[in-house]
Amino acid sequence: MNNQIEIQLSAKRKEKPSFSDLKFGKTYTDHMFIMDYSREKGWYDPRIVPYQPITLDPAATIFHYGQTIFEGLKAYKNENEEVFLFRPEENFKRLNRSSVRLCIPEVDEDLALEALVKLVSIDRDWVPDVKGTSLYIRPFTISTEPNLDVTPSQKYRFMIIMSPVGAFYKEGMNPVKIAVESEYVRAVRGGTGNAKTAGNYAAAMLVQEKASAAGYSQVLWLDGKENKYIEEVGSMNVFFKINGEVVTPELSGSILEGITRKSVIELLKHWGVPVSERRISMEEVYEAHQNGQLEEAFGTGTAAVISPIGELFWNGEIISINDNKTGELSLKIYNTLTGIQIGKEDDPFGWRVKVE
Amino acid sequence: MNNQIEIQLSAKRKEKPSFSDLKFGKTYTDHMFIMDYSREKGWYDPRIVPYQPITLDPAATIFHYGQTIFEGLKAYKNENEEVFLFRPEENFKRLNRSSVRLCIPEVDEDLALEALVKLVSIDRDWVPDVKGTSLYIRPFTISTEPNLDVTPSQKYRFMIIMSPVGAFYKEGMNPVKIAVESEYVRAVRGGTGNAKTAGNYAAAMLVQEKASAAGYSQVLWLDGKENKYIEEVGSMNVFFKINGEVVTPELSGSILEGITRKSVIELLKHWGVPVSERRISMEEVYEAHQNGQLEEAFGTGTAAVISPIGELFWNGEIISINDNKTGELSLKIYNTLTGIQIGKEDDPFGWRVKVE
Ligand SMILES: Cc1ncc(COP(=O)(O)O)c(C=O)c1O
Ligand SMILES: Cc1ncc(COP(=O)(O)O)c(C=O)c1O
Repeated sequence: MNNQIEIQLSAKRKEKPSFSDLKFGKTYTDHMFIMDYSREKGWYDPRIVPYQPITLDPAATIFHYGQTIFEGLKAYKNENEEVFLFRPEENFKRLNRSSVRLCIPEVDEDLALEALVKLVSIDRDWVPDVKGTSLYIRPFTISTEPNLDVTPSQKYRFMIIMSPVGAFYKEGMNPVKIAVESEYVRAVRGGTGNAKTAGNYAAAMLVQEKASAAGYSQVLWLDGKENKYIEEVGSMNVFFKINGEVVTPELSGSILEGITRKSVIELLKHWGVPVSERRISMEEVYEAHQNGQLEEAFGTGTAAVISPIGELFWNGEIISINDNKTGELSLKIYNTLTGIQIGKEDDPFGWRVKVE
Repeated sequence: MNNQIEIQLSAKRKEKPSFSDLKFGKTYTDHMFIMDYSREKGWYDPRIVPYQPITLDPAATIFHYGQTIFEGLKAYKNENEEVFLFRPEENFKRLNRSSVRLCIPEVDEDLALEALVKLVSIDRDWVPDVKGTSLYIRPFTISTEPNLDVTPSQKYRFMIIMSPVGAFYKEGMNPVKIAVESEYVRAVRGGTGNAKTAGNYAAAMLVQEKASAAGYSQVLWLDGKENKYIEEVGSMNVFFKINGEVVTPELSGSILEGITRKSVIELLKHWGVPVSERRISMEEVYEAHQNGQLEEAFGTGTAAVISPIGELFWNGEIISINDNKTGELSLKIYNTLTGIQIGKEDDPFGWRVKVE
């Protein structure tokens, strides 16, 4: 394979939206990265081209059998106009793990990272510099062969698109209200829960819509076998601080291995805060709450970094946490992680990648 | 909404493949049906146009969050050049049930059927007339709004494409070998198992590939909670004849409500053959086999109509059924159903729709 990334710059640059009033995922930058795959050639023609629509046969398997996986990460710009990525190599590792589960060919992680850095560098002006904003990056692979047989596609396309996004917390951190779902299930062991693939998100929409209508910002999923053990939130992993110990559900195969989750665990260990990855039931969380030992709860994910949970609604009961206020530890983790991401704090773990 | 279907005929007709040597889902007819949806307009612009590629923004939610559903049915042509559809209204009913689960707007079933009949009529020459062949029809809806937020799309496209397919049984009915899967899971109650949506098929590919490599043509899925009860085969529902009674797994919410399944149940009741829809475990099938009471087993689906099962591989044991030969009842059902479909048998249930 020819690993040389070809670059075709856009003749006309689009007008940028106001960086102080960005909506999530609505505007896209001037360029995108594309690379195609066929059984015979492997991955070929890596190229950066102007952002543009793509053309597919209506029988392309992506439309019918959903062979697709994606990633999500961000680029941050600070006051000194420095641009950083946060652990991007972890995203490409996870992309490849997801690919294996979906019978999609893996990409060369080094090439993907090189392409990403080049792309961000070319569209550097699109990385917003207003406090809390960032450039959201979406690598993804779709199956493109026209074929109605239910069998892995012979052709794929890997792409990276990017979109400037606003601050998650415009008026300081607000703890969220989350509904615990006991009927519908997101994923089970042996399913695709630990892969970042479209079907997981499509399956969750109906429940998410119901939760939103009832005033809850997200859904907390329980395991598919017993409807007992905590899995994760719509697009966040979840942590509980109980009597001084931080607990997060273990990687059982049915939850996503969040990169923020991983970073939080590493940070807590570094600080000497007791943290354990294990099964944890809603029962246990409820009892800890009743005994006054449920000190904090928060979600972790690329979008919010840390999202304090103020209230859980479960089996008709409201479990309110830390008086609906952001916990001390949650805030400390948030400040440290965002500080590392933006280049304001030391980076003892080497998590930052600078884009020149 | 303007329900008038606009028709734009193709200036150039494609060369047709040889109808005695067709592969599944590789060639498409001259025309396709399209209808678009927006929140403001509802479904609009129903139209039949030349078969052609479609163009989408790379941020279209179909590529990321997989909001999509599909259907599969067939048109048959007999020696008198008559063309029939088999219970097409059932497919559009199921399409709409799947849509609700995936937060996709429902289509007008009458309009969809009218469009389908018009489309088949226009591409009537594409319905192959060689024994056992048919025109496979694929209605599907995809979400098209460019938006990286995980929320139901505001825009959709409904399409119907068609492909001539060869005979399933070229050299008579061959019983298939099927591997029972006890680790991976296809769907659970509360999941999307009873919706015909891409994610279910994407999730199954890895296991299907392993089964194929081991010499099994399909996978038999067990329930996601206990890994005990029989669900369905890759793209077929499943029936067992045990000691004179025909048993098929009940519609638990995690299996597809097959139209062939429904027709087989109605046919058996019509004939006075005892048939029940209930939970059935692999344990029970195994015991029936040990006691010599497992008389027949077969899958049902649009592709094969009836597919006799000659062997099940479960927990390291081979369960061979009826000496690997097609059972009497299986054959009778097959002959009756295909006879009705092609217009050779009476149609006491009114299942046929003639295309003029
Ligand atoms: C289902 C799910 N869980 C967890 C996460 C958090 O992962 P990360 O920290 O890598 O963003 C995400 C999103 O990104 C997700 O989609
Ligand atoms: C998962 C699954 N189950 C069962 C069936 C059988 O349904 P039908 O008889 O309507 O073709 C199909 C396919 O069509 C299917 O995809």
